[in-house]
Amino acid sequence: MHFSQHEQMLRIVNSDAGGILESLNRSRCLELMRDAPVGRVGVSITALPVILPVNFVLVGEKIVFRTIPGTKLDAAAVGAVVAFEVDGYSPDGTSGWSVLVQGPCYEITDPAELAAMQAIPLRPWAFIEGVAQRFVCIETSLVTGRRFQCPQS
Amino acid sequence: MHFSQHEQMLRIVNSDAGGILESLNRSRCLELMRDAPVGRVGVSITALPVILPVNFVLVGEKIVFRTIPGTKLDAAAVGAVVAFEVDGYSPDGTSGWSVLVQGPCYEITDPAELAAMQAIPLRPWAFIEGVAQRFVCIETSLVTGRRFQCPQS
Repeated sequence: MHFSQHEQMLRIVNSDAGGILESLNRSRCLELMRDAPVGRVGVSITALPVILPVNFVLVGEKIVFRTIPGTKLDAAAVGAVVAFEVDGYSPDGTSGWSVLVQGPCYEITDPAELAAMQAIPLRPWAFIEGVAQRFVCIETSLVTGRRFQCPQS
Repeated sequence: MHFSQHEQMLRIVNSDAGGILESLNRSRCLELMRDAPVGRVGVSITALPVILPVNFVLVGEKIVFRTIPGTKLDAAAVGAVVAFEVDGYSPDGTSGWSVLVQGPCYEITDPAELAAMQAIPLRPWAFIEGVAQRFVCIETSLVTGRRFQCPQS
């Protein structure tokens, strides 16, 4: 497993103090994502970074969410390489995890694939059924994650 | 209050179906942010969008979080215009809200301001005290938010 200099430093510091900071491998990251209902898409819109929450499902190893054609999210995300983030943490903030995906985002247009997606219960964020008709996919090209547990105080 | 074409369309659709989708004004957005312990910073690192969670506090109308000098987040965020996102949702996904801030991000270096920040209980995400020594501020230059409630099914 590869650790960046930053992670190595933290690993040492945390180990000394009784805490845990560890990198998560791809399969563990995907496992955590399967249990998370909400993720956040990061794109640039008119040269400004934007983060928007979406409900999603993992279909195989692809992230699928729904958008409304013609919206800013739809226009910016589809055809771009995007960031996708999922996290979880304890209410007191002493433990948590986060996963970051970076990959190309595209619309699902293949009729068979589209029919399969439409059969999956996938609620759009903030929108009622019928409006968010476009199914969008993010490939999990790059997946990184980490989990931490603060030392017991 | 200004609604985009997208929001107007949704407002009508949701109204018909008994759901709610509303834009949140700046003061309501800041109020929601005050109660949220975790936000997500969106930046570009080597031309790829990245989203990373941080613990934060709102000091006045500025977002403050801690970073470790020399890390990717620190290098990318400080000096850039960044996105900052906070959200909340019911476990069943039928209601939720999200706030998006876009603004310049800079390090707090003024000794008096720094001393004030150090006195605030602000846990760094994933890191133990003493390592994340740099206090970083995001100005809430642009703040947008929305809240939704799905129609009763």
